[in-house]
Amino acid sequence: MQLAFEDFTPGRVFQLGTTVVDREEMLAFARRFDPQPFHVDEEAAKESIFGGLAASGWFTVGLWMRAYADGVLNGATSLGSPGGEEIAWPAPVFAGDELVATMEVLEARRSRTRPGVGLVRLRAHLRRGEQEVFRSTFTGMFGTRDGGGAASG
Amino acid sequence: MQLAFEDFTPGRVFQLGTTVVDREEMLAFARRFDPQPFHVDEEAAKESIFGGLAASGWFTVGLWMRAYADGVLNGATSLGSPGGEEIAWPAPVFAGDELVATMEVLEARRSRTRPGVGLVRLRAHLRRGEQEVFRSTFTGMFGTRDGGGAASG
Repeated sequence: MQLAFEDFTPGRVFQLGTTVVDREEMLAFARRFDPQPFHVDEEAAKESIFGGLAASGWFTVGLWMRAYADGVLNGATSLGSPGGEEIAWPAPVFAGDELVATMEVLEARRSRTRPGVGLVRLRAHLRRGEQEVFRSTFTGMFGTRDGGGAASG
Repeated sequence: MQLAFEDFTPGRVFQLGTTVVDREEMLAFARRFDPQPFHVDEEAAKESIFGGLAASGWFTVGLWMRAYADGVLNGATSLGSPGGEEIAWPAPVFAGDELVATMEVLEARRSRTRPGVGLVRLRAHLRRGEQEVFRSTFTGMFGTRDGGGAASG
């Protein structure tokens, strides 16, 4: 059975597994979307505040997003996201890092204007061991089980 | 001369040019990072709230980021970003869309703890005509011209 709005109860934590940062993919992403020296140039990166080639923060987000799609969204009545209120990269990410992804439900409420749709405020995390490397708080929209909302897929 | 912290004066707007959404790249990104049906499956997307294949919001962010790197960061003393406080996708983005990117400086202050480093609060925008499709408010760190900070690159 698909996860619907009703299943996203505050406090519930979804374990989204471990992802390993692939050096070539990290570099290819940075060359296309974020070609700053500390993301694409090994020598420049050594001299930078990161001390070595660091992932673009948006690549890190992408790794979390994929884990979230696989672990939650593609088995859910996901209706997309209007956005969020926090995004943070407390520490740099490097090639070979093993990152553990989680998603926690903070709040859930039904849409006042759209029957069958619920808004879930959630927190994303990627951690390398005890170190948090990505955090975000944003809103996901989900169809309700009890009616009205068009489910995705 | 490189852009340094001192050049990011509140109210200054940087025009970052136009980017066109390439269908194949949009799809490849979604398949890897955000494989939800409305991002990767034409038929499912038609039935979704988007009414057609829509870009992953993170792909849209990537397009803005590239424009920002080309137009500002790679000619500046960029030291990365700790994160931001707002991210929004007010309307879906589709293949073939022409998106105009801007960056506006909201606030600028010197770091209290790190000499030679300045923190710039800025607003990112992508627009399709009059329609805003991406907005974010976040902080960039830049080396100051008058001293101390190690510049990138």
